[in-house]
Amino acid sequence: MRHFLRLADAAPGGVRPLLERARAYREGHARVDFQGRILGLLFLAPSLRTRVSFECALHRAGGHALTLDAARGLWPLETRRGVRMDGTAVEHVDDAVAVLGRYVDALAVRAFARLEDDRDDHRDELFAALRERSPIPLVSMESGREHPCQALADVLTIERRHGPLAGRSVLLRWVPHVKPLPKAVANSFLLTAASLGARVTVAAPAEFDLEEGVWEEARTYAAVSGGDVVRCHERAIPPETVAVVAKSWGPHGAPQTLWRAGTHDDWRLGPRDFAAVPEASLLHCLPVRRNVEIEDALLDGPQSLILEEAADRLWVQQAVLAALWDSEERRHP
Amino acid sequence: MRHFLRLADAAPGGVRPLLERARAYREGHARVDFQGRILGLLFLAPSLRTRVSFECALHRAGGHALTLDAARGLWPLETRRGVRMDGTAVEHVDDAVAVLGRYVDALAVRAFARLEDDRDDHRDELFAALRERSPIPLVSMESGREHPCQALADVLTIERRHGPLAGRSVLLRWVPHVKPLPKAVANSFLLTAASLGARVTVAAPAEFDLEEGVWEEARTYAAVSGGDVVRCHERAIPPETVAVVAKSWGPHGAPQTLWRAGTHDDWRLGPRDFAAVPEASLLHCLPVRRNVEIEDALLDGPQSLILEEAADRLWVQQAVLAALWDSEERRHP
Amino acid sequence: MRHFLRLADAAPGGVRPLLERARAYREGHARVDFQGRILGLLFLAPSLRTRVSFECALHRAGGHALTLDAARGLWPLETRRGVRMDGTAVEHVDDAVAVLGRYVDALAVRAFARLEDDRDDHRDELFAALRERSPIPLVSMESGREHPCQALADVLTIERRHGPLAGRSVLLRWVPHVKPLPKAVANSFLLTAASLGARVTVAAPAEFDLEEGVWEEARTYAAVSGGDVVRCHERAIPPETVAVVAKSWGPHGAPQTLWRAGTHDDWRLGPRDFAAVPEASLLHCLPVRRNVEIEDALLDGPQSLILEEAADRLWVQQAVLAALWDSEERRHP
Repeated sequence: MRHFLRLADAAPGGVRPLLERARAYREGHARVDFQGRILGLLFLAPSLRTRVSFECALHRAGGHALTLDAARGLWPLETRRGVRMDGTAVEHVDDAVAVLGRYVDALAVRAFARLEDDRDDHRDELFAALRERSPIPLVSMESGREHPCQALADVLTIERRHGPLAGRSVLLRWVPHVKPLPKAVANSFLLTAASLGARVTVAAPAEFDLEEGVWEEARTYAAVSGGDVVRCHERAIPPETVAVVAKSWGPHGAPQTLWRAGTHDDWRLGPRDFAAVPEASLLHCLPVRRNVEIEDALLDGPQSLILEEAADRLWVQQAVLAALWDSEERRHP
Repeated sequence: MRHFLRLADAAPGGVRPLLERARAYREGHARVDFQGRILGLLFLAPSLRTRVSFECALHRAGGHALTLDAARGLWPLETRRGVRMDGTAVEHVDDAVAVLGRYVDALAVRAFARLEDDRDDHRDELFAALRERSPIPLVSMESGREHPCQALADVLTIERRHGPLAGRSVLLRWVPHVKPLPKAVANSFLLTAASLGARVTVAAPAEFDLEEGVWEEARTYAAVSGGDVVRCHERAIPPETVAVVAKSWGPHGAPQTLWRAGTHDDWRLGPRDFAAVPEASLLHCLPVRRNVEIEDALLDGPQSLILEEAADRLWVQQAVLAALWDSEERRHP
Repeated sequence: MRHFLRLADAAPGGVRPLLERARAYREGHARVDFQGRILGLLFLAPSLRTRVSFECALHRAGGHALTLDAARGLWPLETRRGVRMDGTAVEHVDDAVAVLGRYVDALAVRAFARLEDDRDDHRDELFAALRERSPIPLVSMESGREHPCQALADVLTIERRHGPLAGRSVLLRWVPHVKPLPKAVANSFLLTAASLGARVTVAAPAEFDLEEGVWEEARTYAAVSGGDVVRCHERAIPPETVAVVAKSWGPHGAPQTLWRAGTHDDWRLGPRDFAAVPEASLLHCLPVRRNVEIEDALLDGPQSLILEEAADRLWVQQAVLAALWDSEERRHP
């Protein structure tokens, strides 16, 4: 694995080894050593969990993380090739990443979907440009299309509680919000669970469908892994579900434009929804709008694994970085 | 000691051991080891000294500090419980602190007084909420009511120069400013010096009184320690004073509303005020408005300990963190 | 060497040893050890390369860098002495640096030229004030007049490719831009190359001359080193040139006022300009406005050393810090 910008960089065969490595680190069966390693964190969008979990992933293993926040302090970056840079962009992203590649050992990047057009967002042009040019491994901290580290943490948390996902039913369940959100977390969970052989149901009101390209990729993984991916427009949690990943996202197509506040408030999750599935777990990537997306009683109740899920970010990110740096050493021994 | 959010978390018995520990670190009689420790620094208000002294307190002892600046980069946090989060707050502070508690080993927090109503500010609702929920030790970097690490540094600096505070006279002396400031530093010095048995005089114009709740707490400590706390409205430094802690703060009650610029300019301190107390030291927590609060000649003269006081922040903060982590290990051996 | 705020702090005799040290670190012939060292980075202007290269310079050698960004988070600093601080400045720079000097082991500072008046910018009053007061070594990360670490990297990169600069011809070549830029990088290259005995030609349109004080200092160095410094208004690269340092800067005198957008666009550099000097190298400190200052084909072609130059920042900065800390130990053994 040279980069980890989308699940396809590991999938389908590479997801299981990443999870095993993360679990070994978590349980102390293997030691990760990042002594002398520096990870750059380039934020083109804000963060709490992601930044802290990445910084701690490095420092807990003797390495160092260097946070660069482009929203403040950094100048605007040009992403188009061959243009005359006479506008506001001060530096070409090619040059920025080439220079950073001389100082740090890997670069993690976050840039959110703009929510004007799903197809634009899912094209991930910035990440494609970075990938082409970067002399060092790149890791996604969420792009327009995917948030692969989050999904790895999700499945690690679920498997720690419920065992291997192959053949198990999981529900990616849309919940309401006060504004349209990106689809990256939803896409990544669908892809990752499908690659592990889970039976994934995506339940959302009809106008909140995910992109067809993501469905196609998920179906490809499911065909290989023996899993299954299914669309559904029902609110109820199917009885065989072992884990419900709750997530809000914007309408399909042009999320900002099509958004109507307050519709589908009845999709909010609460203890009542979980009454029929007493063994099922609740996951949410956080931050969560309490009592808008999910009721307090469910978030703080015994079925909620939200804090376990956040904690697992650290271990999967250590696993991803270790795998990237191992591959690199094999290339340049 | 589980948290150090206010002096009461250590007082009355625990202040002396913290000072002794700080002094031992400073003089090299004991070694502090924060290897493998990560402290999160959550700033809901700006900082220079506090941030740098905490970061260095960690790094000088082999640990790591992770700075989170909520004024920029972090999203707004909800502090009320049970509400429907359909406003601007993106994350509940309960969730933020619970998640951070999975990544870091302690969390230091700064949130200034809002200066609209002293009683509101002194209630410290945010800190109370954090304390209730946090799985890890919390340290105040200044709340609406207190700045306990600053006061520990103040008394360490005074005792290094003048010996134990018990029975000695110290003056907490109001000085003018261009705007109303929080009372946290003043409150904390009063409480801390009282807990060590000092005779503390608080000198300020009548309308700049401190809150009655703080006076009560200080009297309780003085009753135990054999100290004394006294209100006074005179500008002159009493002859028996060993140390003058100069500080500005806003009017009593509703500081922003009651503030009148330029009144009491004759309370500015200068060398003339110190002529009658040639052995007394001047302290100020910094930043200081030169020639508004205190004249250059006094700040830069031989009686000024302001730089010693700033430097002592590092040692008391190491002592506080070491004490918190020691207690935690005793709880979970 | 007590500080490195301008080339004169090392020149003329001290530049060569810094370069030799940097090269030894780069090639692994000497090891730099910053264990236990903390460098403060005070940014009064934005940065990417400089911040990352300084942070990595410390962390790669076991030390720690602490970034303070005054553009956000820090309060405004007063720089005048003896004034009544009743304006917006919250803290005097004297106090800020004196306090930081108690926490960190050296302080690197960046403050850009304001471009209102070259003479004001070149006076570097802030840096002069800091130098006078600082208890710890100071390093420039670019002032109004100079950017000495950048110039050290430039000459290291050139000498690694072309051998010692003494007697070699180098061209400091003005290029167009969308706005007036500071002269610090240009000044520093002229001074540094002159101190090493190079024959330096500065080629720019007539109205873009550098300050006479800088020329005088450069002539003094050249007289000692056996080098030469020459003004020229021709665009063509002289045939004997081994390296072209391309840089834009504002008009002479009052850069903001005298600036005319779009003039001298024919000074843009491209492969055609380098056709007659196939052995010559191109340098640029970055960020570069592609196809405004220099064409893509030249920047990305075989004559371009821009990424080598950026990478060399790390080694020269390690050399400067090691030299400063060595000198300090000799003073206080």
